[in-house]
Amino acid sequence: MIDGAVFAERRARLAEQVGDGLILLPGNELSPMNYAENYYGFRQDGSFRYYFGLNIPGLVGTIDANTSEATLFGHEPTIDDVIWTGPQPSFRDLAASVGVGQTSPPALLIDYLEAEVDAGRDVRYLPQYRPENRLGFERLLGIPAGKVDERADRELMAAVLAQRLVKSELEIAEIERAVGVSRDMHLLAMRTVRPGLWEREVAGRVRGEALAAGGDVSFPIIFSVHGEVLHNHTWTNQMEEGDLVVHDSGAVTDTGYCSDITRTLPVSGRFDARQRSVYEAVLGAQLAAIEAMKPGVPFRDVHLVAAREIARALTDIGLMKGDPDEAVAAGAHALFMPHGLGHMMGVDVHDGEAIDENLVGYGDGFERSTQFGLSSLRLARPLAPGWVVTVEPGAYFIPELIQRWRSDGTCAAFIDYDELQSWQGFGGIRIEDDVLVTDDAYRVLGPAIPKDPDDVENVMAEAADRRL
Amino acid sequence: MIDGAVFAERRARLAEQVGDGLILLPGNELSPMNYAENYYGFRQDGSFRYYFGLNIPGLVGTIDANTSEATLFGHEPTIDDVIWTGPQPSFRDLAASVGVGQTSPPALLIDYLEAEVDAGRDVRYLPQYRPENRLGFERLLGIPAGKVDERADRELMAAVLAQRLVKSELEIAEIERAVGVSRDMHLLAMRTVRPGLWEREVAGRVRGEALAAGGDVSFPIIFSVHGEVLHNHTWTNQMEEGDLVVHDSGAVTDTGYCSDITRTLPVSGRFDARQRSVYEAVLGAQLAAIEAMKPGVPFRDVHLVAAREIARALTDIGLMKGDPDEAVAAGAHALFMPHGLGHMMGVDVHDGEAIDENLVGYGDGFERSTQFGLSSLRLARPLAPGWVVTVEPGAYFIPELIQRWRSDGTCAAFIDYDELQSWQGFGGIRIEDDVLVTDDAYRVLGPAIPKDPDDVENVMAEAADRRL
Repeated sequence: MIDGAVFAERRARLAEQVGDGLILLPGNELSPMNYAENYYGFRQDGSFRYYFGLNIPGLVGTIDANTSEATLFGHEPTIDDVIWTGPQPSFRDLAASVGVGQTSPPALLIDYLEAEVDAGRDVRYLPQYRPENRLGFERLLGIPAGKVDERADRELMAAVLAQRLVKSELEIAEIERAVGVSRDMHLLAMRTVRPGLWEREVAGRVRGEALAAGGDVSFPIIFSVHGEVLHNHTWTNQMEEGDLVVHDSGAVTDTGYCSDITRTLPVSGRFDARQRSVYEAVLGAQLAAIEAMKPGVPFRDVHLVAAREIARALTDIGLMKGDPDEAVAAGAHALFMPHGLGHMMGVDVHDGEAIDENLVGYGDGFERSTQFGLSSLRLARPLAPGWVVTVEPGAYFIPELIQRWRSDGTCAAFIDYDELQSWQGFGGIRIEDDVLVTDDAYRVLGPAIPKDPDDVENVMAEAADRRL
Repeated sequence: MIDGAVFAERRARLAEQVGDGLILLPGNELSPMNYAENYYGFRQDGSFRYYFGLNIPGLVGTIDANTSEATLFGHEPTIDDVIWTGPQPSFRDLAASVGVGQTSPPALLIDYLEAEVDAGRDVRYLPQYRPENRLGFERLLGIPAGKVDERADRELMAAVLAQRLVKSELEIAEIERAVGVSRDMHLLAMRTVRPGLWEREVAGRVRGEALAAGGDVSFPIIFSVHGEVLHNHTWTNQMEEGDLVVHDSGAVTDTGYCSDITRTLPVSGRFDARQRSVYEAVLGAQLAAIEAMKPGVPFRDVHLVAAREIARALTDIGLMKGDPDEAVAAGAHALFMPHGLGHMMGVDVHDGEAIDENLVGYGDGFERSTQFGLSSLRLARPLAPGWVVTVEPGAYFIPELIQRWRSDGTCAAFIDYDELQSWQGFGGIRIEDDVLVTDDAYRVLGPAIPKDPDDVENVMAEAADRRL
């Protein structure tokens, strides 16, 4: 439980930043799976959770930016609610628990908004990613569902992002708690991965750990012997001797804060020589990137530190050639790491991206590159104290991409395509931690999760011994 | 994998039943959780899965009811799709795998529908429970999102239900496979429940088992020491010596078929005398109800068999009084069992209710009762061979309901409110299995899951011994 005063203080600060108008902040509804009454697990909107704290579907909050007065719209429980869903606090008490003194039935919201609009006030809102909320705005504000996002308030978006991206001590502690759950999830995977098991048998139980801890996963678990398939959320392969398995997962806790951690495991329990060489390349890139983090350093530069480390190591291995710095300038490393180094993290695992991905990561004179690889970087602008950012370099051997680059002659001066030929089926490696930007440097958040290759092998070996 | 000919045959039968017009059957989209690109696990629409088999988001199927010709609208994968989501079959091949010869890009659907409407043909569709599909219909058919459901086609709804509710041998085998997963889920719970653990620590890992088996849960797991709270999907209590825990969960398999099983466990590992007496009342009611099932018997009568058994047993215990049959006629048993005995089950765990709950369970001269308890019965009409129905009687001690009935003097002739006073905090008990109506009787589906109280205690005791 987070103290109600925290939310009141956040709302007051937002009102002050925005200055005038009425801020309309709808929470999320339950999402139906396969019929109207069979719902997915409830996931609250990140901004609603940040300002209004309550993890309950169907609420709407408003903040008067002139006075910072807040109102929560929701139902008081009826006797039938009590019979079917158990004794529960009054809605008024729930609102009070997050510092909101004023509540109102949802049916009155439309008249309330109409009166505000009639009084000449701006109704300011954030972009909406849920179709039911777009339909709700159509009903409440008369804005066609398809036009809701383009009329979102830019000032409000900027103010919410500026506030949400800088984490308080309390938020950092909650994120570290989420990393603690991640540790249990990753140790479970390290202790159970072995040849013959199916990916789903490990990944499914990893999700079970996140649920057992009182939250859920913060995004669909990536768990695959085809780590080179970057957006792979299915777990349909059987793990075999010699495979690498990329395990990228995170937890969201009961207070709504996230973690996002990746480890790569040798299914046999031991990295072979090639696997270890690439693993050490990726690990070296991750450590160098983290070491480069401090306020004022553009995250694009941190990304490039990792890229150069990978290019250097792959050149030593013989997969790349020429000058590694020139290779990175030409974008040659992106054959192996076509994604960005990381993203913001908080109450959303890609923090702030519900509002606008470019507003989160660009601006301050930074524009998105059009170069393959670098164009996928979600955060480029200079780091600031209190930001929490994932650092997740990787190296992948993507057959279709290699084939296309080879036949196009792309970056042929920097890639040894003949050597690469013999690495077919290698898969991919990624290593990821969650890093806080401090006043003068960085801090890797949460309890340590084995990532040195020897440590990973030792955890796997101990578990294998216990199974015997 | 289900053979493509199965889907082609189902579509042909539907076309024949409907006779004319164009049947428009959208599949589901991915549902965003907390920002546009962070999705819940995909859940396909039940009717789409039934007729088109594919478990992929963003597809639309059409069936020409005059010719039974089917078309699937979807994207062919691009080279970027292959790079980011891995090698995949062509959309054309996927369509062919479910017996559909004709595919088309989604962008052409709107023109296709317009041409059909211009040619004077009816576009028939089912009610839509997903807001994005309602918005899609607004765009495709010009029907306001809020009016989509009222224009759904009653003939199509009836034809789809008539077909879906009667299960083939293949479907029954798939449901039994789902019950097999349920068995693993329930055995895991029986083997881990003990005083001191939190509900989430068991329930979370139970979901992990469903995921590990290659599917997921068929509905949010109910796992609670407050079994008397009927719609309780949170797992926030610590289990204590003397508690009962109601565990109601189900699996959906990779082919999309569901199970739904409830067991009630004594947290201590042993039922005390009162717990055993109510457990045996509920078990007796369940067995008697199942025994009463055969084609032609209205499920309302089966519900009443269970109600009378419970009334009889609770009269023996001293909680009810007077003639049990008269008590049931007056609805007095509903103080203890305020819900219906069961529901249809198939590709949806409440099969067919996405189309219309009343069309599934009523009609044939049966109308929904207005009596408390009986009004919650989802299925009343006569059983037919091939139906799969859950049988899930329960007995609950709901403080708020007891208090209301007592102060209103409701059914005072049949309830011993003074005796009931001393049962405060008892909680609830429910026992549920999935039952097939055969040509002349019934068959309980799937492998046996311990439900005799001695068997439950034995499984728990063996696990406790192993923990020592």
